[in-house]
Amino acid sequence: MNIPASLVQLIDELAKLPGIGKKTAKRLAFSLLLRQEQDALDLAESIVRARKTIRNCICCFGFSDLEICDICADPRRDHEVICVVEDPRNIFTIENSHVFTGVYHVLQGAISPLQGITPDTLKIAELQNRIEQSPIQELVISTNPTLEGEATAHYLMDLFKDSVPVITRIARGMPAGGDLEFADSNTLARAFEGRSPFKTEIDV
Amino acid sequence: MNIPASLVQLIDELAKLPGIGKKTAKRLAFSLLLRQEQDALDLAESIVRARKTIRNCICCFGFSDLEICDICADPRRDHEVICVVEDPRNIFTIENSHVFTGVYHVLQGAISPLQGITPDTLKIAELQNRIEQSPIQELVISTNPTLEGEATAHYLMDLFKDSVPVITRIARGMPAGGDLEFADSNTLARAFEGRSPFKTEIDV
Repeated sequence: MNIPASLVQLIDELAKLPGIGKKTAKRLAFSLLLRQEQDALDLAESIVRARKTIRNCICCFGFSDLEICDICADPRRDHEVICVVEDPRNIFTIENSHVFTGVYHVLQGAISPLQGITPDTLKIAELQNRIEQSPIQELVISTNPTLEGEATAHYLMDLFKDSVPVITRIARGMPAGGDLEFADSNTLARAFEGRSPFKTEIDV
Repeated sequence: MNIPASLVQLIDELAKLPGIGKKTAKRLAFSLLLRQEQDALDLAESIVRARKTIRNCICCFGFSDLEICDICADPRRDHEVICVVEDPRNIFTIENSHVFTGVYHVLQGAISPLQGITPDTLKIAELQNRIEQSPIQELVISTNPTLEGEATAHYLMDLFKDSVPVITRIARGMPAGGDLEFADSNTLARAFEGRSPFKTEIDV
């Protein structure tokens, strides 16, 4: 039996999403056909609307539906502290933890010569411009603790060591709730290197 | 920070899909924003196209992009054997196993008085009409081996016992590759009830 062409196409398109295999794509496609038609059309419309309205903030390159995002436009944020992240998603993750009151800069990737990602393909020149136009006190480098993230962190450190008074890197060590037994040796090494005086307060 | 409204809406719409929680919906939404715009629009378009072109076959109520589906229109299929299923998806599953050469009838559910699903809300009258207009030799009842599926099977058995020469129910027993150790007692009971003379061929 031939599955109707438009159903095959829908399954194929759904299977392009990350973490969605052929089987899940099929399940989702059928559910889109079995649900109320309006529900399915609402999803289609919200995809189109999100793509049409969401762009990169011209200042930090985070996601925004305005030219300048809420964070960059907020006078209550500390504009002299910039947190550098690889990906616009990271901003939402950090904001969710309510630990940072400065502003952000999205690099849109990390240096990876093997994948052809060199400093000039990232938003590093834009960060330089931004800092030249309005000097900052601290640059918090929050790239991922991966090979590429570390390389990028070192590159930024070198680049800004003369123009930014304080350059920090987020701590690497044991994740909260983690188990020593399952920590890899790299994480353990970082945790020992970064050990700090014991405080009696509980801060997990 | 406020997540842009159109992004929140996209996440909400994605989270309505079965098996997609808030976290996965977020991941999918971000991936739709980070991918090539055309990819995201293609998905939206394929949802709309599938909903606009796929309808229920007027004969068997399976999914089809034509008024009468490929199976109902195929003269090589045995139109005197009708397999009754609950859900249009079941047709694809059965077709995939290449074991059935007759035609189908989708009930669009199973009898479940508690959920307000009574025989008259299902496509049972349509099945009766179909059989009256063109008598059949066998009705293969392939509703699910659940309480509702069994109730529906019994109802159909009663209804058609005088008009259809042979009424069968698909076998219930151990699934291929299954382990006795993990089989529930209901499945085991069905497997013993349905035991058949031992054949030397391997037919798993």
